[in-house]
Amino acid sequence: MNITVTPVATVHNTRKEAIDDNWKSIVTEIELAPHIPTQALDYITDFSHLEIIYSFNKVNEEQVVYAGHPRGNPQYPVVGIFAQRKKERPNRIGLCTVKLLGHRDRTIIVEYFDAIDGTSVIDIKPVYLEFEPVGKIKQPDWVNDVMKDYWK
Amino acid sequence: MNITVTPVATVHNTRKEAIDDNWKSIVTEIELAPHIPTQALDYITDFSHLEIIYSFNKVNEEQVVYAGHPRGNPQYPVVGIFAQRKKERPNRIGLCTVKLLGHRDRTIIVEYFDAIDGTSVIDIKPVYLEFEPVGKIKQPDWVNDVMKDYWK
Repeated sequence: MNITVTPVATVHNTRKEAIDDNWKSIVTEIELAPHIPTQALDYITDFSHLEIIYSFNKVNEEQVVYAGHPRGNPQYPVVGIFAQRKKERPNRIGLCTVKLLGHRDRTIIVEYFDAIDGTSVIDIKPVYLEFEPVGKIKQPDWVNDVMKDYWK
Repeated sequence: MNITVTPVATVHNTRKEAIDDNWKSIVTEIELAPHIPTQALDYITDFSHLEIIYSFNKVNEEQVVYAGHPRGNPQYPVVGIFAQRKKERPNRIGLCTVKLLGHRDRTIIVEYFDAIDGTSVIDIKPVYLEFEPVGKIKQPDWVNDVMKDYWK
């Protein structure tokens, strides 16, 4: 059964095209959609970090894959789509943990966010310490390699 | 503009009703939907943790709020919906960082997951170290209080 979602906010920043790396300098404003009351952001600055769920608007359904080389690099294995974060994925949904810089009326300002200008935001959740990963995080070597310039 | 998503997997566990606390003992199996090839899970055990995006299936649209007391407790402030993780939220989408216990054919087994039996899963993403929160996490006192029995 399909599920329909309505964007709750829109991304405004200087990155107009999907580029993989160098997100460090991008400061993003996230503005509530007209149907969401301003009150929905009350007390948000009590939190330092947010999880933003968003739509990869520019990816078409035909581009979706179920496995592939991360970043298309044949030096990496053919990894299942649920074992990587490639945007050409079923439902084309992105997720990023961002740092909250500020709140002004119907807008929040964040950094460490990897969505481009015009992206539709589907949900905003505060990071609770109690939802952080339990135990040590393990990942394969190709992730370190793929991510080395991401936040530069 | 609305976005339509199709569940990629289903939750199987022993928790049949929405109960707030005591998730520690719940081990969950997540089984791929028929339209998703088995290959989508290849190499998933290279990761220790996953982020699961899911639908709060049992919440009706009429129950959605834009602000409220966390857990309905008047001792807490009236907090905006994007400054709390209450399930009665626009788009009724949940998100949890889980620990991966195993993988068998079209099923993964996880713990530290807070979705009930029959929940529709919208996406599964591996946790990358590089997407962990940057800097210290700040949260208000009511979160510590609300979460004290969550993972018991």
